Amino acid sequence: FNLLTFQRWLEMHTEHCSKYNFTWINVSLQVWMYCRLYRTMERFNKPEILEAAKSGGAFLRRFARIPNSGSPWKCAFCLTRDGKALKVQRTIFSECFYVMAMDELARVTGDKDMQVEAAQMMDQLVHWVRVDPSGLGKPQLSGDTPVCSMAVPMMLLCLVQQLTEARSGEEVDKYREVGGWCVKQILQHLQRGGTAILESVSSEGKELPGCEGRLQNPGHALEAGWFLLQYGLENGDQELQRTAVDKFMEIPFLTGWDKEHGGLLYFLDVDGYCPTQLEWSMKLWWPHCEALIAYLMAYSHTKEPALLERFSQVYDYTFSHFSDAENGEWFGYLTQQGKVTLDFKGGPFKGFFHVPRCLYMCEKILDSILNKQET
Amino acid sequence: FNLLTFQRWLEMHTEHCSKYNFTWINVSLQVWMYCRLYRTMERFNKPEILEAAKSGGAFLRRFARIPNSGSPWKCAFCLTRDGKALKVQRTIFSECFYVMAMDELARVTGDKDMQVEAAQMMDQLVHWVRVDPSGLGKPQLSGDTPVCSMAVPMMLLCLVQQLTEARSGEEVDKYREVGGWCVKQILQHLQRGGTAILESVSSEGKELPGCEGRLQNPGHALEAGWFLLQYGLENGDQELQRTAVDKFMEIPFLTGWDKEHGGLLYFLDVDGYCPTQLEWSMKLWWPHCEALIAYLMAYSHTKEPALLERFSQVYDYTFSHFSDAENGEWFGYLTQQGKVTLDFKGGPFKGFFHVPRCLYMCEKILDSILNKQET
Repeated sequence: FNLLTFQRWLEMHTEHCSKYNFTWINVSLQVWMYCRLYRTMERFNKPEILEAAKSGGAFLRRFARIPNSGSPWKCAFCLTRDGKALKVQRTIFSECFYVMAMDELARVTGDKDMQVEAAQMMDQLVHWVRVDPSGLGKPQLSGDTPVCSMAVPMMLLCLVQQLTEARSGEEVDKYREVGGWCVKQILQHLQRGGTAILESVSSEGKELPGCEGRLQNPGHALEAGWFLLQYGLENGDQELQRTAVDKFMEIPFLTGWDKEHGGLLYFLDVDGYCPTQLEWSMKLWWPHCEALIAYLMAYSHTKEPALLERFSQVYDYTFSHFSDAENGEWFGYLTQQGKVTLDFKGGPFKGFFHVPRCLYMCEKILDSILNKQET
Repeated sequence: FNLLTFQRWLEMHTEHCSKYNFTWINVSLQVWMYCRLYRTMERFNKPEILEAAKSGGAFLRRFARIPNSGSPWKCAFCLTRDGKALKVQRTIFSECFYVMAMDELARVTGDKDMQVEAAQMMDQLVHWVRVDPSGLGKPQLSGDTPVCSMAVPMMLLCLVQQLTEARSGEEVDKYREVGGWCVKQILQHLQRGGTAILESVSSEGKELPGCEGRLQNPGHALEAGWFLLQYGLENGDQELQRTAVDKFMEIPFLTGWDKEHGGLLYFLDVDGYCPTQLEWSMKLWWPHCEALIAYLMAYSHTKEPALLERFSQVYDYTFSHFSDAENGEWFGYLTQQGKVTLDFKGGPFKGFFHVPRCLYMCEKILDSILNKQET
């Protein structure tokens, strides 16, 4: 794959959604992806890619954090072109993507200040998640019951992998402890005697009442699957590797693959009721990206033909439905029947992230499979 | 129509979405609708309906307002069964529905305290909207540009009509001034030389840049249409009556009716781009409810056959697609092709409001047409 399609994406994006030019998706993740491509793939090791990433990084450092928002670490979710905050979320995700961008940029530029800033932000994030969330700005309500969303430990685990990669020392040991905590938290979402992955559970790791508790997101479970598999491989944890493949990759396919029309459904209710999300039956690009990474990674390590078969099935659907052979890039949103229903290539929630990360990861895994076969 | 289907709705709702049992939709609007049916339709003037409304009202008075939320008037959007706040929105809508419930309940019970409370809440709402929104709890951001959403003056106009109905005096004069302001605000959404109704405009009444500025919601424009027509009729404003029918009812039909599959599309981009909302091409029940009221009301006053034709076209689509002939009540969510895609009858955003209000209003209008013909 190459960056030509990204230029098209940017044009379309600017044209369609001018207000959303600078969400975290569009800057932080783009900076992260550019740096990673620059650092680890020879054909992207070009000065123009580094320059683009650096100017994105400078924008983030100057404008992403919001003064007077209760915490000096709180970041905007959405900014104007000239750096004014438009929207702040009371979650941790804008800040997490900031860490990813800063750490990866520090790796390519060698900027120590930037790495320190990423580490400080990480400390703040861990504090918000594990100690006290009040700095995020959510008011305390009498009916509040703590809900554990799988996205939170997944995101932190992703940061742990980012911050520890090819590093060692005291800081890394600290992060490994956080990583272990994240894995435990993610595994709590395996419910109903190991037959279902639920998006949200109680703080005691139990199923929540009502439709919120019954919600499944097959693409998200698959993404958690390859996060866990990667962590299990890095730490030599074979049981975790098995759970990642047999549970977090197999269950979402069995329940989430649409047997009539193909593709992964967006949301499901574990008891077979209709989810309350209007888009539940749509096919979105990103769950398919995550499925491709998950099955190829799982196949690469287990060599089980059934997993290559899964990869191939998702690949066929994805490249015949999402990929735009005529004009490049991928469509993001299809009806259950597989018809493109939102025709833009970039939008408020479709930036330069899932597609390039998927292509990048799959290329790396395929290379490693081929290299192993050669030796 | 009758209340049997509502009982089914409640059963399904409790079963599917136990967390959302007490959103404003489910209590405030239900109390309002019950009281209005009790007060103005003989066959619903039954003690059990009044009792149900009173118990809903008592719940609201006891639990809806949240202590220590910055303002004594801020209401919860979502409560647990035992009255604990689960969610607070930083908008005015929960409070608006509270006013509707309290005022209508005061009309049937004669409870003066309740009426005073409704009036005080109304004063607070007008202050938030016209003077200072800071009490709503939205943090000030440097990129904030004031955006006028059509929902706000529509909602206030609805309250003005509620609070002034069959009343007179100083209080009513005050509300009439608010009503006039609301009408002016709504008319600002007629843009592009009178050819488009846009959901959001700038505080100077100009089109906003980007996809937010280009957004159209045909069902919402139709609802605004019958609000304006009603106001124009009550105030003898013939120009407003014409604008309501020719612009707010005609434009949404010309742009929003799906010529291929029938039904009203949920969102549209005025420049023909794809909206960024995932559900833009779905068919929702409530825009069809509002369209039925709008066209029947417009026909009743103009006697233009084309408007009866519009009513009939919407009626045919609605009753062949949304209404469940077998089990009663209406489905709420269809694909663009008209297939039911969310099969519940009541959910977080589908309560006892748009369907019964539509049936109630249409029955009243049809009665008045028939009565006129008889004399």
